[in-house]
Amino acid sequence: MSSLQNDAFPDPAKGEPFLLTPGPLTTALSVKEAMLRDWGSWDGDFRAMSKSVCDQLLGLAGDPDDAYVCVPMQGSGSYCVEAMLGTFVPRDGKVLVLANGAYGLRAAETMRYLGRAYTLIDKGDYMPPRGAEVAEALAADPAITHVIVCHCETSSGILNPVAEISEATYAAGRKLLIDSMSAFGAIDLDVTQIRYEAMVSSANKCIEGVPGFGFAIARKAELEGCKGNSHSLVLDLYAQWTNFVKSGQWRYTPPTHVVAAFLEALRLHAIEGGVAGRGARYTKNRDVMVAGMRALGFETLLKDRWLSPIIVTFFCPADPKFVFTEFYERMKDKGFIIYPGKLTVVDSFRVGCIGWMDAAIMARVVKAAAEALAEMGVASAAPPAAALAERAKLAA
Amino acid sequence: MSSLQNDAFPDPAKGEPFLLTPGPLTTALSVKEAMLRDWGSWDGDFRAMSKSVCDQLLGLAGDPDDAYVCVPMQGSGSYCVEAMLGTFVPRDGKVLVLANGAYGLRAAETMRYLGRAYTLIDKGDYMPPRGAEVAEALAADPAITHVIVCHCETSSGILNPVAEISEATYAAGRKLLIDSMSAFGAIDLDVTQIRYEAMVSSANKCIEGVPGFGFAIARKAELEGCKGNSHSLVLDLYAQWTNFVKSGQWRYTPPTHVVAAFLEALRLHAIEGGVAGRGARYTKNRDVMVAGMRALGFETLLKDRWLSPIIVTFFCPADPKFVFTEFYERMKDKGFIIYPGKLTVVDSFRVGCIGWMDAAIMARVVKAAAEALAEMGVASAAPPAAALAERAKLAA
Repeated sequence: MSSLQNDAFPDPAKGEPFLLTPGPLTTALSVKEAMLRDWGSWDGDFRAMSKSVCDQLLGLAGDPDDAYVCVPMQGSGSYCVEAMLGTFVPRDGKVLVLANGAYGLRAAETMRYLGRAYTLIDKGDYMPPRGAEVAEALAADPAITHVIVCHCETSSGILNPVAEISEATYAAGRKLLIDSMSAFGAIDLDVTQIRYEAMVSSANKCIEGVPGFGFAIARKAELEGCKGNSHSLVLDLYAQWTNFVKSGQWRYTPPTHVVAAFLEALRLHAIEGGVAGRGARYTKNRDVMVAGMRALGFETLLKDRWLSPIIVTFFCPADPKFVFTEFYERMKDKGFIIYPGKLTVVDSFRVGCIGWMDAAIMARVVKAAAEALAEMGVASAAPPAAALAERAKLAA
Repeated sequence: MSSLQNDAFPDPAKGEPFLLTPGPLTTALSVKEAMLRDWGSWDGDFRAMSKSVCDQLLGLAGDPDDAYVCVPMQGSGSYCVEAMLGTFVPRDGKVLVLANGAYGLRAAETMRYLGRAYTLIDKGDYMPPRGAEVAEALAADPAITHVIVCHCETSSGILNPVAEISEATYAAGRKLLIDSMSAFGAIDLDVTQIRYEAMVSSANKCIEGVPGFGFAIARKAELEGCKGNSHSLVLDLYAQWTNFVKSGQWRYTPPTHVVAAFLEALRLHAIEGGVAGRGARYTKNRDVMVAGMRALGFETLLKDRWLSPIIVTFFCPADPKFVFTEFYERMKDKGFIIYPGKLTVVDSFRVGCIGWMDAAIMARVVKAAAEALAEMGVASAAPPAAALAERAKLAA
């Protein structure tokens, strides 16, 4: 029994596993079926589809005063992060990059490519950047104009405290940019609650579309001042936006089928109750999965306070019979693709909670993990002592 | 009766027109059906799919010595042009941009964004850049390191003489980059016949996939020297390539469904006889359509010598009863989406010859155009005298 409407799930018997990965993820069949026709990108029908996408996304961001605009951008989520940094940070600006994982570090690497000034607070694999240290860094360096933070740092699954970071940023008279790639659509990022100049997210995360484009939600008055900032023609969000205003069209060929799929994904998102409904399902997915995995002896990297309903990192068991690649293949054979870890200190793996899956599916994930451990002869899923010592840092 | 296998054509009765546009274009149903499942981008199955795409594309470029590599890149074709310029042109390089339409001018605009040196030969709306003038420009400016040219300039449909441009470029000891967006897969660009360092094309053109990514075919020895050139993290073809070599993966989330569709498109391309077979069908499409339109009184912008089998520009009739937007809507109602023109001097429109369509379909296009003219009360499709005067330039 599933809680999802229109629930044609993947059929593991046909070799199609569930994707317990943070995008691309498992999508509803009707989302994929929306790709069964071709659209002319110049035609009025497709322009109306693009406008509907933007209007609905702005609705999710809760823009009551028409003060924000939505600008879609072809490519992956990282394209949108680079487009946001290149468009919103003036060439003589300076960015405070808050990193606690691969995606924060990627923002710093993007700044290096752009050749614009930045400074980095690197908290390591998963420790959250806090408002107080942002305030301190901004007080110490008046040259900093912008702060960028990951909403959910997908490499550990930590949900960063964006509200307190926003407060610290604007208290110091600076501007906030948010990478909400894996959170937007399931976790509130309402412009009336959390102040920011721009955020970016992607079609294939919590809205549950297929990959091929992302989008920025930006404060219009800020974007209006961004002409000439971009280092890149194709990634210029200002030029992309003005072209939409002028013609209703993407500047360059859009991934038409992916856009059609995204419209259907937005329809399902609304039926489920929008951000609150989607977030509630993911939270239940996480709770069922984490409780089951803990019952098997697995331990999460993060304490519950920081655990996102997006993706969860587990320590690999200390038992030498546990070999991740073998566990991965056994889980895949049982119909579930999990994700390798990205921690540098201890071995780990990740299980996503997002996509067209509900608590009943998550219970099957736990059952598959139990079977895989048994087949491998792993007696205990308990992590090594070093992992628990690592985790103790979070409590400090 | 259709010459195409697996020919489930769009059903105009369901409001789905044929796209007589140069990408996105009408694709085979089986291409779209390949998108009906989700793939994990990290998983071995998808890595094998990406490898197969690259291997098959290299086969189309005729690389006998493994001297070339294929690097896919997320985004539209313009992303690939920018990636090619940013990656292959050193920061102290200088590019001779050959333009005869919107896409050549876009390459110049890309160079302006990059802040790297370039010089432009702008031939106007459609006059072909010739080998002799390239030789002259290169002789006059020793600082020029690279030449970039559009293979088929889609804004007029002209097939530029890339062979003589390549000869002139290498005779002067410079390097050639080719934007073969709308030609590769239907018109030979064999590395053993035409010398170049890199070319780019896109999934949704002559291979007849859906839009969402493009690719570069590049001389490996040249790409190996490109580390550190790119102005952009996400558009760095060198970094994208080394990551494929290391892990078999795209650096950032690929448009998985679009890649799956492209594999099916490549299968159909091979069945049709590869580049030669695909080119033959498009040529027949063009010949049937152009002959029919000329019989109606329409005139092509280009003389037959320069007419590509990709897209054809027609002058708008002089008759004041001909209004393009009305013609467009009438053609769409009859099941065919045509394309507005891009000429600056005289009014024009364009009809694409590429996509999952054959000569029988093209005959229906001509019939629809005849009906639309009759409904609008256009007595003659003959162009204004200014159009013919414009065209006379080509003969000069």
